[in-house]
Amino acid sequence: MNFEVLFDYENKTKEQKAFDNILKEFESKKIGYYYLPETSQQFLKTDFSDIDYEEVMVIGIGGSSLGTKMVYSLTLNKKKKMYFLENPDPIDIYENFNKIKKPLIFVISKSGKTIETISIFKKVIKHFNLKPKAKNLKIITDKDSPLDKFAKEWELESFHIPENVGGRFSVLSAVGIIPLIAAEIYPKDLLEGAREFRDDFFDKKEWHLCKKAAFYAENQKKYPVNVLFAYSTLLSEFKAWFVQLFGESLGKDGKEIMPVGHIGSIDQHSFLQLLMEGEGKKTITFLKIASFENSLKIPDIKLPHLEATDYVNNRMFEELINKECEATKEALLTKNYPIDEITINKLNLKTIGKLIMYYEMLTSAIGSLLEINTYNQPGVELGKRILKNKF
Amino acid sequence: MNFEVLFDYENKTKEQKAFDNILKEFESKKIGYYYLPETSQQFLKTDFSDIDYEEVMVIGIGGSSLGTKMVYSLTLNKKKKMYFLENPDPIDIYENFNKIKKPLIFVISKSGKTIETISIFKKVIKHFNLKPKAKNLKIITDKDSPLDKFAKEWELESFHIPENVGGRFSVLSAVGIIPLIAAEIYPKDLLEGAREFRDDFFDKKEWHLCKKAAFYAENQKKYPVNVLFAYSTLLSEFKAWFVQLFGESLGKDGKEIMPVGHIGSIDQHSFLQLLMEGEGKKTITFLKIASFENSLKIPDIKLPHLEATDYVNNRMFEELINKECEATKEALLTKNYPIDEITINKLNLKTIGKLIMYYEMLTSAIGSLLEINTYNQPGVELGKRILKNKF
Repeated sequence: MNFEVLFDYENKTKEQKAFDNILKEFESKKIGYYYLPETSQQFLKTDFSDIDYEEVMVIGIGGSSLGTKMVYSLTLNKKKKMYFLENPDPIDIYENFNKIKKPLIFVISKSGKTIETISIFKKVIKHFNLKPKAKNLKIITDKDSPLDKFAKEWELESFHIPENVGGRFSVLSAVGIIPLIAAEIYPKDLLEGAREFRDDFFDKKEWHLCKKAAFYAENQKKYPVNVLFAYSTLLSEFKAWFVQLFGESLGKDGKEIMPVGHIGSIDQHSFLQLLMEGEGKKTITFLKIASFENSLKIPDIKLPHLEATDYVNNRMFEELINKECEATKEALLTKNYPIDEITINKLNLKTIGKLIMYYEMLTSAIGSLLEINTYNQPGVELGKRILKNKF
Repeated sequence: MNFEVLFDYENKTKEQKAFDNILKEFESKKIGYYYLPETSQQFLKTDFSDIDYEEVMVIGIGGSSLGTKMVYSLTLNKKKKMYFLENPDPIDIYENFNKIKKPLIFVISKSGKTIETISIFKKVIKHFNLKPKAKNLKIITDKDSPLDKFAKEWELESFHIPENVGGRFSVLSAVGIIPLIAAEIYPKDLLEGAREFRDDFFDKKEWHLCKKAAFYAENQKKYPVNVLFAYSTLLSEFKAWFVQLFGESLGKDGKEIMPVGHIGSIDQHSFLQLLMEGEGKKTITFLKIASFENSLKIPDIKLPHLEATDYVNNRMFEELINKECEATKEALLTKNYPIDEITINKLNLKTIGKLIMYYEMLTSAIGSLLEINTYNQPGVELGKRILKNKF
């Protein structure tokens, strides 16, 4: 894993402040996600082999699904299919029901009362004829939440999210770990990668994070947008996870760093024009995978009239996509964007774990320097109240 | 189809100018997409029934895939599966190859020399052992492009894109029409819906478009971002199509209206916080589907400790998701965002056609008022040159 900040910036005081702020958060133990590599160890022995199931169904929205979906989508050679019922969209639910035959079902809600999740859950109860004590129905929620109390009443197995771990920071808690195990993705290395990044950071071996956080916070007005340009179709769900993490954490008190995610090279054909010739005012982060598991070569085929494309013949596709990333980066550097680049040398659970912890700690560092509360989301409450009054 | 502008604005001169500008473009016949409802009629009789195929494969990127993918994803009760090979991402190509057995293949590139597309095409030639005269291989490109000349050499059937129709405006040309027919989605109504919107517009029955374009152009500096909040998982690909359309067209000469797409209600749990309490500076468009084909009811199940969620019992899921849309809109209106709302009464090819023409004409109107060239994309050339030099 390689992190490279390509813009000139030095503000030692602010960089040190970023470091001190999150060290203080870490040591205070008030913010729980830093400790998930340890506190989630208890779940690694979870075993669903006594249950007869073919698919894993996750009922959850936002922080209860995005992280798990991201890790699942980044896992090659999947053994069990996972389905995510997130949206109270009738067609989406209907299409999922058509595909799912014998699921192990996880109902996930931190508050234990998310209206979308419980509505879909009720439909799932009816469709799959679920009853109290159902072995293929598991609950993941905060201790003593309404959903947790329901689980007790129905005598269902339930798993708890630490109270001080917010939804968007919860992928390494039971929220992600338990359904991943059910899908036969064993997340030991995921936790190990996260732990390693965290410890390296506190050993001052990942100072680039402090530099980036300091620059983003200091220039929030000048660069209120961060574009993540991720070079692999596989990273689409990572992009969605990142957008929630930044969006809900860093949009407060009239300040924001708006996350925008794009996939290369696809979105070079959709969004690059605007970056090259629009207003600017964005920081850009490139994310690429240096080495792909399933390498494929572009065959040495010469086609009449298409000789101008022969320069890629005999090259690997990973070389093409990564050179596209390089070329786009160099083109954007001519426009003086503050650019940084993250390179995943090899995609596996350990590197995904590192990337998760990196992005969570980066979010914490920026939020602390912006002097906002990174961990709450008061802005979503009004809509919830209005919704309830519509029924 | 219902279009509602919810912000106060009147500038008759500018609104009239928006109207006049695109009427002039239309009448000049220099910009071809306005005429696709007529010029694409020739393709409606295309018939692939003499070919033995199980899946439709589209090899194309950007404007050569996004529109088709969008229409396909919005079509219920699909008869043939479509696969889109867009990204030179080895894992993506590999996973597609694992699923596709007997494809009818379309290679689509307006310029006829898109490097990603031709690279993937070469791999497909090898994998499926394609030869000259292959009946299951079709070409869609500009007349006399390198790819067109190749098609002649290999004696392949090819379809042409009108020269004056740009990639991102080409979904109603052969680019979209031909592969959709192959997938047994007959696009007659798609063209009819587009024609109807265009004619209604020029009959001055769709003035809301002029108002919105005038407001967006006049306030480009104040609101450089347009957020599309689309309420249905089905609209995910529409979102991607919209992002290309706005992004490549309206990011030029130091001006931009940056498109950002979100899916409701999912992204209420990811992006709403930033809209409610961030910097503002965005216009917001809500897009919703009033009536869903497959209605589903939330069962009247009362669960112990979850009584607080019973207010949705016995309601349709479409009512829940659309009331979520309403509630979010009302919450955002308290923050004084300029908001408009598009309601698709019933999702079908005709309404999709209308929506396509609406968005294309809106893009033209805004671009003309910003006094930029809506139809070119000079900003992407530098990256292409740099790429070539890397090999």
